[in-house]
Amino acid sequence: MDVTPGNPPADRTRHGHSHVLGVDSGGSGVRIALTPVRGEGPALTWSSPDPAVMGERGIDAQSLLDRVLPAAARLLREAGAELCEAVCVGASGMATLGDDLRAVLPDALRDALGARRLALASDAVTAYAGALGQRPGAVVAVGTGLVALGTDLTPEGGWRRADGWGHLLGDCGSGAWIGRAGLEAAMRAYDGREGASPALLARLEALLGPAPELPGKLYPRADRPALLASFAPEVGRCAGTDPVASRILREAARHIAGAAAAVCPRPDRESRPAHPTHPRRPTYPTLPPGRTRLVALTGGLLRMGEPLLTPLHRELQLQLPHAHLIAAAGDPLSGASLVAAALATDKLRLPTEAGLLRIIC
Amino acid sequence: MDVTPGNPPADRTRHGHSHVLGVDSGGSGVRIALTPVRGEGPALTWSSPDPAVMGERGIDAQSLLDRVLPAAARLLREAGAELCEAVCVGASGMATLGDDLRAVLPDALRDALGARRLALASDAVTAYAGALGQRPGAVVAVGTGLVALGTDLTPEGGWRRADGWGHLLGDCGSGAWIGRAGLEAAMRAYDGREGASPALLARLEALLGPAPELPGKLYPRADRPALLASFAPEVGRCAGTDPVASRILREAARHIAGAAAAVCPRPDRESRPAHPTHPRRPTYPTLPPGRTRLVALTGGLLRMGEPLLTPLHRELQLQLPHAHLIAAAGDPLSGASLVAAALATDKLRLPTEAGLLRIIC
Repeated sequence: MDVTPGNPPADRTRHGHSHVLGVDSGGSGVRIALTPVRGEGPALTWSSPDPAVMGERGIDAQSLLDRVLPAAARLLREAGAELCEAVCVGASGMATLGDDLRAVLPDALRDALGARRLALASDAVTAYAGALGQRPGAVVAVGTGLVALGTDLTPEGGWRRADGWGHLLGDCGSGAWIGRAGLEAAMRAYDGREGASPALLARLEALLGPAPELPGKLYPRADRPALLASFAPEVGRCAGTDPVASRILREAARHIAGAAAAVCPRPDRESRPAHPTHPRRPTYPTLPPGRTRLVALTGGLLRMGEPLLTPLHRELQLQLPHAHLIAAAGDPLSGASLVAAALATDKLRLPTEAGLLRIIC
Repeated sequence: MDVTPGNPPADRTRHGHSHVLGVDSGGSGVRIALTPVRGEGPALTWSSPDPAVMGERGIDAQSLLDRVLPAAARLLREAGAELCEAVCVGASGMATLGDDLRAVLPDALRDALGARRLALASDAVTAYAGALGQRPGAVVAVGTGLVALGTDLTPEGGWRRADGWGHLLGDCGSGAWIGRAGLEAAMRAYDGREGASPALLARLEALLGPAPELPGKLYPRADRPALLASFAPEVGRCAGTDPVASRILREAARHIAGAAAAVCPRPDRESRPAHPTHPRRPTYPTLPPGRTRLVALTGGLLRMGEPLLTPLHRELQLQLPHAHLIAAAGDPLSGASLVAAALATDKLRLPTEAGLLRIIC
């Protein structure tokens, strides 16, 4: 859509005539929300349980557009609007799998939705924005995977990031991590090895069939982390009576709090990074001592409730005595909408950084 | 090849006219050995670094035959022999991925090599036979993966098996397990989380490139366990000076000894399985108290040497004070040949059990 002279996008924005689009693309599907740019009126949303298609260049932009554009057009009609002033696409794997999105989306979104501005964000950033908005602090997003992100919003500052390395290299304390540990304890019971949980073995066999057949079911699947994470609630259910399940959740809590602590250093320790000799490790600017930090947790794993939250709150008090834990304001989709709205009104204060938050136009 | 009247296979075997074929198919390739049935003369061997092809029915029998049969024919010509009296195919994943082998191999091997007898074995069984022959005891095979197997060779007894569940459900203490733990400790150093090893981070980046790019390299690969295991030697190299690497190897040693202990119970504890209430857990017959057990270790991980072997011998003494550790006599290929020779001479005493050792004909 061409912009006609005398009615530039910035004017329309100021007069509240247009909307912004937030997109959340993750392992459990794609969701979009259309929001009035000045926040008047409710968001209109659409969702699909099918995750984005992966092609040779990572997330396949055309397949995402084929689903998002018709849905966005419907929401625009429903809202009585014509265009999206700005779009923010938040996606898991954006840093490593976002090449095609970066190449294809700007022109496509401008042509189809009139989008003047576009931000591409890691789902960690949209989780942060959803939970804390544009306030400084730290957010741990913990679902199938786990990533922690923090920022001071100082002019020279950037993002601090910890974990988010996937189920083989990290994501310690995540749903996949807890589920995997639970299944290992179940297989140990089958074998008669130490560290065994007969209770988890019983749950494994009730849910997934005979224990010796599990490898044949798990390894051929492409969504192994999701299958592992699907067992995490069973660990939660057994934790009240099973010491192995309870230990797994205590360790998960330690890892989750540890990720938060890594991106939310104690004010008096900021100038002493843990491994100052390593040249590649990013260094961060310092904050005035004594300042309290906001910390929020977000993500589906928190639905496990008390068996995880009790040890987690204890670990957060231990590892982040300087932090103030607050409830997340919203989810990653609301975070994507918030970033798009901030972009449309030139009020984006979150750090931009390749791989985490990139302003394309 | 048809068997001509008056020269039945059993006669030829007794007169030492024929040979047996051992086949070892694993993640690191396919190897075969042709051995005189009565052990006179050296084994002739052939190997290929390409692993067996996986099809919809698991290990693809025809693709294995396409490579093994011409090589076997060449070895037979070289030996001046005409046929293989018996064949033993040992393969990783035999239990879950062996359907096509069981369906196709008997006729194909009889037609092409004159094979009268055929055994299909898990690579755990060929590792056992290679290490201990047909003596009772326990063997832990530890390379990229880990599996422990034990037997008393009593008439009513079978195999005891522990672990071998793959890199997500177990294989605790294996090369993939050690490498994965080392890479996690490296990523922790990159993030500034606890449990970090700056030394392993330096090795990661020297070998595999920048740490943040590792997930993009690891997850798309089909041979993730092999890539993880390729980092295990670095953990061994760092263990002398790095406390995190040293701790990883101590834990690996505990797991390896634990798997051995699970298949080699103390004579005085045999009648008390760890989890007697679980209905699916196999129960094993008892041995006379006081009997010493033979235990052998085999597999590529042992090449790591002292950094692993020192804590491993300590753990074996702790967890298996009743066991006598002996050096493995041979490798899984020699084990496959041993099973084939025992089959040809009707002297097979190892337990037959679906998924571990199956006599097809």
